[in-house]
Amino acid sequence: MLKFDENEKRNSINGALALRGEIEKIAEDIENRGFDELFFMGIGGTLASAMQTVCHIEGQSLLPVRTLSAGEYSMGGAKRLGKNSIVVFSSVSGTTKEIISAVTRAKAEGARIVAFLDNPEAEIRHEADWVINYPGNEQLKLFMLSDAILHLRGEFPEYDEYNVAVENNLADSVISAAYAGDEKALHWAEKHKDDPLHYFTAAGNLWGAIYSFAMCYLEEQHWMHTKSIHSCEFFHGTLEIISEDTPVTVYIGEDYQRAAGERVAGFLKKINRNYTVFDSMDYPSPGIPDKFRERIAHHLLRAVNDRIDIHLEALTGHDMEIRRYYRKLDY
Amino acid sequence: MLKFDENEKRNSINGALALRGEIEKIAEDIENRGFDELFFMGIGGTLASAMQTVCHIEGQSLLPVRTLSAGEYSMGGAKRLGKNSIVVFSSVSGTTKEIISAVTRAKAEGARIVAFLDNPEAEIRHEADWVINYPGNEQLKLFMLSDAILHLRGEFPEYDEYNVAVENNLADSVISAAYAGDEKALHWAEKHKDDPLHYFTAAGNLWGAIYSFAMCYLEEQHWMHTKSIHSCEFFHGTLEIISEDTPVTVYIGEDYQRAAGERVAGFLKKINRNYTVFDSMDYPSPGIPDKFRERIAHHLLRAVNDRIDIHLEALTGHDMEIRRYYRKLDY
Repeated sequence: MLKFDENEKRNSINGALALRGEIEKIAEDIENRGFDELFFMGIGGTLASAMQTVCHIEGQSLLPVRTLSAGEYSMGGAKRLGKNSIVVFSSVSGTTKEIISAVTRAKAEGARIVAFLDNPEAEIRHEADWVINYPGNEQLKLFMLSDAILHLRGEFPEYDEYNVAVENNLADSVISAAYAGDEKALHWAEKHKDDPLHYFTAAGNLWGAIYSFAMCYLEEQHWMHTKSIHSCEFFHGTLEIISEDTPVTVYIGEDYQRAAGERVAGFLKKINRNYTVFDSMDYPSPGIPDKFRERIAHHLLRAVNDRIDIHLEALTGHDMEIRRYYRKLDY
Repeated sequence: MLKFDENEKRNSINGALALRGEIEKIAEDIENRGFDELFFMGIGGTLASAMQTVCHIEGQSLLPVRTLSAGEYSMGGAKRLGKNSIVVFSSVSGTTKEIISAVTRAKAEGARIVAFLDNPEAEIRHEADWVINYPGNEQLKLFMLSDAILHLRGEFPEYDEYNVAVENNLADSVISAAYAGDEKALHWAEKHKDDPLHYFTAAGNLWGAIYSFAMCYLEEQHWMHTKSIHSCEFFHGTLEIISEDTPVTVYIGEDYQRAAGERVAGFLKKINRNYTVFDSMDYPSPGIPDKFRERIAHHLLRAVNDRIDIHLEALTGHDMEIRRYYRKLDY
């Protein structure tokens, strides 16, 4: 399969899962000292991962938790963030200026900070109370910390069973989804690569992922025009711009917001003939019980979206590394 | 000026401001009994107003406050919403199914509910602990409740001075902004009515307003293709899709996130020749001190956007009341 290294993918996921002991230690430190509110902070793609994580937590926990835009927070706002707050962020480079500025402010306000850093040398590590160094797998790492905290609070009694299941089977499930979704991803790329504007909807813990896919991948890396909208919000405006031929892609996951995606798909079936549904239920995960599927569905659809990226790049000849402005222009 | 009734606008705003006594009584009830968290709930346009209100509060208060999507909440999530929660929502018709479902759930969880209803006969009024009946002026009413609560908590010491200023001058300022912005709005409508896709950015307490303008007005009522993106997020993906000719409109307000809008405008100045900036500072508000401008800037730019609506409708002949699907198709 084009540009797919199965072993690299397996090692990458399993390496992230192997961080569990280290992550559990952080969760214990956090819980032992206590806190008022947990902020998952980011910007762009990392804000999107924060949105996914907060949705995941809010579906099952009483924890006071929220997303925080590093861009907004670096300018003001979120005044209640202070010494009883925990700020969690993930950064690939560790050099994004909004992240540095926001972390500096949060630190000055007395918050304790958890940093997931892809780059172990990032200077920002010195601002954090806890650091986890490991590349990629951002959502997985953030969900692992969340689950460890939920477990300590008695809100995830099946934590051990879940971990055995994903540690043994998640990598294989993700790899299987990549193979199973490859042909559909190629077809999608062939059909939609020249769309003047493509609409995307998703809900639940998938929404952040699709917000990011439309912006950080299709806009930024493929220079495709996209609009993403939450599946619930779709019915309060965007639907009216959708005609018979408008290209729309709907992602459907398996958490408590599944019905929102099904509603969009049902609507499109009636009025549109240019839509695609990516439903995580089409991608099995042998060894991972159904009751845990809501936690991993986003990984399966991410594997399929990664295939879209590969095929788009091959079909258009547009190198995903090219940027018009990022790190080329001062802005 | 086309389709503009100055007296109707003045009476509408002043009528809303005259609700202050009634709103202050609710704020006192809420504060006297105490609460853990304040949820501003909505969907589509009303979620957008909730976003504006929460941003307004978070810029200056320690209050635990958050937005809540009625669509998402009606399916699950936000488990911590309960008997120590206050839910505030606004609804024009009172019949939106996600709102009814979410209010029913919040009520069952023991939350106390504040309803701003345009329609005094809406059945949903029976679910609310407090009801304010008054048409239009959604953001103004929500900000009035917020400010009354902040005042009671000692977080808005200039509350009385502010109210004298807006009660005497807000209507005139909004009307002046409509007149002052009319020509620019006409020019915008002429230039952009046939755009294949128009990009919008905004930040701070304007962001919700522009998210709503792009979706609930331009998409839903004018059938224009739009993408809105927060000014902070713009730099983390969307910028790369903007070339020399891409149409972009930037809204800049006066709260702590003003710099985010200025940054987008500065970027566009370097690389684009098809952008428009609507800056609230171009619209004066005699009698309202500068220190309060951040609270009213969104009303001034709303007055200008209303002029865009009027001119778009006149130029395209597309009646804003026409819907393809809403209340025509079961979805």
